[in-house]
Amino acid sequence: MTDRYFDDFAVGQTHQTDSAVVHLDEIVDFARRYDPQPFHLDDAAAGASVFKGMTASGWFTAALTMRLIVQSNVMKATGIIGVGIDELRWPRPVRPGDTLRVTMEIIDVKPSQRQPRGIVSVKLTTRNQHDEVVLSEIARLVVPRRPQ
Amino acid sequence: MTDRYFDDFAVGQTHQTDSAVVHLDEIVDFARRYDPQPFHLDDAAAGASVFKGMTASGWFTAALTMRLIVQSNVMKATGIIGVGIDELRWPRPVRPGDTLRVTMEIIDVKPSQRQPRGIVSVKLTTRNQHDEVVLSEIARLVVPRRPQ
Repeated sequence: MTDRYFDDFAVGQTHQTDSAVVHLDEIVDFARRYDPQPFHLDDAAAGASVFKGMTASGWFTAALTMRLIVQSNVMKATGIIGVGIDELRWPRPVRPGDTLRVTMEIIDVKPSQRQPRGIVSVKLTTRNQHDEVVLSEIARLVVPRRPQ
Repeated sequence: MTDRYFDDFAVGQTHQTDSAVVHLDEIVDFARRYDPQPFHLDDAAAGASVFKGMTASGWFTAALTMRLIVQSNVMKATGIIGVGIDELRWPRPVRPGDTLRVTMEIIDVKPSQRQPRGIVSVKLTTRNQHDEVVLSEIARLVVPRRPQ
């Protein structure tokens, strides 16, 4: 699983990452740096918000999703280099204490005509401990062909 | 500019954020937490990579884009609550020492039929000090109507 190249990916393949527990201090630390809105920083503001309690920034959930994929080593040989993301959605908030894991499903593979690489499209779905989807997205990745 | 509600947004409105300088230690710190690939962590691995030098994780650039928007206070009254992102692209890498700023352009406003709020679609474009685009995305935000 750790030395896959473009040639090794096919539509329909799936992979599940390990899980990670989301801690309150990590939520607040991320928010302070990158999403300093009161309802991500402060218990009282969070309780008064539409979320009725502390939640993580959606960008934290996206970043944690990336970490889980990198740590799965599923694309270790080639690196995970994205040209873009489509249809990123956050259908449910992430709360302190949640345990998240990511399912990857290959939905498209397109070789380049000119270069020894291609674009692999991967549907990523991040779920919590209740099996509820907290993030989904389609990542378009540049993946080199296997060296000859 | 700080107390805008759904009713105050209209297609074609634009806003530019302040700028932020990207420091090497911030790039490495983010990568260690959320995108621990060797080419984001280590000078030698970065030099040997397709990027030919240190670059920030695309998720760092997305997170910094969020911070610049939050700090601009342009949606302070309502909060910035995203239902999703479309067409997120990273056309050029971000490197240590780059100065980034974000342009926001309202491209769609859709009132909800049933609730006192609507969806505002904002095209976000993050540029470096050479005016090159390093990130673009369309954010769909839930924005409450002005309280009566």
